[in-house]
Amino acid sequence: MERITSLTNAKVKFWTSLKDKKSRDEHGLFIAEERHLIEEACEAGLLETLLIKDGEKPYAACPDTYEVSEQILKKVSGTVSANRQIGIVRKPAQNAARERVLLLDEVQDPGNVGTLIRTAKAFGFDSVILSEGCADPYSHKAIRSTQGAVFSMNVIYADLKETIRSLRKNGIPVYGTSLKNAVSLEKIKPAEKAAILLGNEGKGVKPELLDLCDQRIVIPMDGFESLNVAVAGGILAYYFRKA
Amino acid sequence: MERITSLTNAKVKFWTSLKDKKSRDEHGLFIAEERHLIEEACEAGLLETLLIKDGEKPYAACPDTYEVSEQILKKVSGTVSANRQIGIVRKPAQNAARERVLLLDEVQDPGNVGTLIRTAKAFGFDSVILSEGCADPYSHKAIRSTQGAVFSMNVIYADLKETIRSLRKNGIPVYGTSLKNAVSLEKIKPAEKAAILLGNEGKGVKPELLDLCDQRIVIPMDGFESLNVAVAGGILAYYFRKA
Repeated sequence: MERITSLTNAKVKFWTSLKDKKSRDEHGLFIAEERHLIEEACEAGLLETLLIKDGEKPYAACPDTYEVSEQILKKVSGTVSANRQIGIVRKPAQNAARERVLLLDEVQDPGNVGTLIRTAKAFGFDSVILSEGCADPYSHKAIRSTQGAVFSMNVIYADLKETIRSLRKNGIPVYGTSLKNAVSLEKIKPAEKAAILLGNEGKGVKPELLDLCDQRIVIPMDGFESLNVAVAGGILAYYFRKA
Repeated sequence: MERITSLTNAKVKFWTSLKDKKSRDEHGLFIAEERHLIEEACEAGLLETLLIKDGEKPYAACPDTYEVSEQILKKVSGTVSANRQIGIVRKPAQNAARERVLLLDEVQDPGNVGTLIRTAKAFGFDSVILSEGCADPYSHKAIRSTQGAVFSMNVIYADLKETIRSLRKNGIPVYGTSLKNAVSLEKIKPAEKAAILLGNEGKGVKPELLDLCDQRIVIPMDGFESLNVAVAGGILAYYFRKA
């Protein structure tokens, strides 16, 4: 096992660069810090590199493992509290299934994006499709919020107009969430194939996207018409859960 | 309107102290920073004091309004980005209704606590009861996550064992969420009077509390048995929504 102690080592610089979305996108890699995330990345065959503190027992078997100093772990880490091990993880390959889909229009909080990926996984959805302007699903906060669901979910950036048209052409009904001109969720017959479109925390779904949907739907509420987008997504994904 | 420019003014020190839970608890006050929260606090008759930047038009009519310097706003604020106005808000009085209740056992993330209060309000619940060890619902992050629901919700710290016993004595069924030994939610007939017990993000509900419930319930999932507590609370609150 190689040992690295210099903060200016080229590998350390490269790992540290993965705190930025640009580098994550360019290299198809991201950082996992929680133990269970490192273990799950390894099980999914996605753990590229493991950094461990001098003398630690590695969380997972990884051929490319480095012993590093505490200063290096702190530098590579995205968190304030120092982790004892850090995994460099490959973004999962995408499969072709697109029958049960969440579409996110500019959901900007990384916790919400991560939680929606976790929820999609819990209710048997195969894909989460993000517009430009969504929070990066591979940031530390988003990854932590997915609780590992990101390792086995299609998470794709795409143009939502094109995606909605293509889904509908393939016989997948697209439901857009909206407080106005919308049918109550209870009136909708849950289908196994479905796409649910959720919007920005402040502004909701863009009208031009709602216009392309099969139906606008609203979750019936009691006077206070306000739900967090991840909670709304949870209620809808549960409603359309796989039988 | 009084004008304050000294950072060491006694009032400034007092307002700043409200960033700490201890002072919030002692004085029954908390800080609201977003414009709509200040407006809603005023409408609810809870806005005690308003601090505005020199020359600003106040967001709400408040007899106790002070013109202050930007430095003072920064000092009182809990956020990095400077706000132009800050409201000092009285915690709402609690009413006696306890028929539709969320019980939170050591939910430790302030965003989750705030989101659960918001969700409770959206689905016609009257009370959110917190165990010791829950995040303070009056911290800046929690308040922001409630989106104003905190102004009109019973939010109470109480011993959950005693609360569960008292609810059941009053004929309110108490449902504890649990992945083990639990009945699927779909098998439960939603009743208007109900209490739902949700647990800590990592550990779930304590077994000794589950033992006191009428029934353990689980949200049916598809293989990946993991939901964020606010999402789980949202699905359950929707299921038990007020007809």
